[in-house]
Amino acid sequence: MDSDSEQTLARLIRDTRITALGTTHDGKPNLAMVALAFEDDFSAFYIHVSRLGKHTTDMEKNPHVSLLVTEADDGRADPQTLVRVSIQGMAEMIRRSALDYPHVQDIYLKRFPEAEQLFSLGDFNLWRISPTGGRFVAGFGRAFNLVPEALVKISTL
Amino acid sequence: MDSDSEQTLARLIRDTRITALGTTHDGKPNLAMVALAFEDDFSAFYIHVSRLGKHTTDMEKNPHVSLLVTEADDGRADPQTLVRVSIQGMAEMIRRSALDYPHVQDIYLKRFPEAEQLFSLGDFNLWRISPTGGRFVAGFGRAFNLVPEALVKISTL
Repeated sequence: MDSDSEQTLARLIRDTRITALGTTHDGKPNLAMVALAFEDDFSAFYIHVSRLGKHTTDMEKNPHVSLLVTEADDGRADPQTLVRVSIQGMAEMIRRSALDYPHVQDIYLKRFPEAEQLFSLGDFNLWRISPTGGRFVAGFGRAFNLVPEALVKISTL
Repeated sequence: MDSDSEQTLARLIRDTRITALGTTHDGKPNLAMVALAFEDDFSAFYIHVSRLGKHTTDMEKNPHVSLLVTEADDGRADPQTLVRVSIQGMAEMIRRSALDYPHVQDIYLKRFPEAEQLFSLGDFNLWRISPTGGRFVAGFGRAFNLVPEALVKISTL
């Protein structure tokens, strides 16, 4: 991937607050909107979801998830040229007793301060999504497969 | 669902050009960005995708799909309040020889005129997604399950 595309990808992830989360439900795809936080080096992504959500029970049964980060539609003539990245990953709930829970909560609340009150409720949990791969579409006919190390590499741009 | 929420849902679908498409790939969720067209009465949704796309081969193996239509992020303090609807459906390729192919192509090109040149290539196909259900999140703690008839009903608003 050329360095312009790498910078575009890093900016896309940093500038997008809302993403689609894909899980499987009885073998069928299930999508939900989630607010997305992440480590500075893109080595892990974090979501904060209700224990009652269908996507939560899906992740408890099958940790394979996918995220889709899409550039905001700016009304251009051809929306197919918007850049986007899909990230495959494994989801794992972070227990409140975990040593890194405060670190992750801090990352999440720096990005989404309005979520603070949800942390005082018992029925929301932080989940870590560890990327296993991805595909970045930088425009029509320009697509790149990603390994997790590629995400870490572009995070320094 | 109250009539304000119904109108919000109808507007959300009409105003959003770009959605997430969820398929299953070897039992794992796979997400792609697609441009979304639809019948005026929301009885069917249409996408136009490359034969080579992973989501296309996924749909050939398992027609269960999910779409996520999300309100554009306007930078508000709490993005979790953005409205969104996930639609479950069954995907089916529309053959070029099908009687309704010209009707669907017309719907698609009215919404996405820039896609015209892709129709002259052999490797893009129209797919119909027939909704089987959905879930509309109208804000924090305000969510509604949808049957296909509910989508048709709100299309008149």
